[in-house]
Amino acid sequence: MNTKQVGDKLVEYCRKGKNMEAIDKLYSKDIVSIEAQGGPEMPAEMRGIDKIRGKNKWWYENNEVHSATVEGPFPNNDRFAVKFHYEISPKTGPNRGKKTKMDEVGVYTVKDGKIVREEFFYSM
Amino acid sequence: MNTKQVGDKLVEYCRKGKNMEAIDKLYSKDIVSIEAQGGPEMPAEMRGIDKIRGKNKWWYENNEVHSATVEGPFPNNDRFAVKFHYEISPKTGPNRGKKTKMDEVGVYTVKDGKIVREEFFYSM
Repeated sequence: MNTKQVGDKLVEYCRKGKNMEAIDKLYSKDIVSIEAQGGPEMPAEMRGIDKIRGKNKWWYENNEVHSATVEGPFPNNDRFAVKFHYEISPKTGPNRGKKTKMDEVGVYTVKDGKIVREEFFYSM
Repeated sequence: MNTKQVGDKLVEYCRKGKNMEAIDKLYSKDIVSIEAQGGPEMPAEMRGIDKIRGKNKWWYENNEVHSATVEGPFPNNDRFAVKFHYEISPKTGPNRGKKTKMDEVGVYTVKDGKIVREEFFYSM
């Protein structure tokens, strides 16, 4: 698959809420993930598919997702961008149960038909 | 200005349609600009603020902008992303006068309070 095709697949999975399946099918085992900001459960930079699976599992276990809107993919050579809009309620922490809007941009790098890098842009 | 402040300023200028002023005020003279795809009037990679001014001038002279929606900035360390939605009509070429929607993501890199790199993600 070329970059655009990988992007189309990722967006398709994310629209269906199948984000874990997107990781299984589209991510390289050597994936590098860069968050805008780290935290105790989620360092800003993580490497390897097991860590990325763990991070996503943690996020889904700790947030209730009310709705997700996914725009894209927007390609540029070996990369593509995706715009996400979520409405969530954290299940833990100071904002527990509080409905929150989240907007973020993901930039993904593709090599040999697999996503090798994901970078997330958002305000905290 | 830090990355977030530069991003806020850029979004403010773009929302007012003052994109040329954004370049004058926020861009480094050594700016590097990467488009998703190049063309005869617009190579994919351009360097230096005069070339970038020329590119933008060309684009505005050759497209009528009906509306522009700007979302962001979405920061990540020394970079920020912005999501643009335009409704334009090209003034020349095969789609002359045809109202067209354009969605794109810009990723900007900031160094010493100035934008040193811009990268645009979109489908053609």
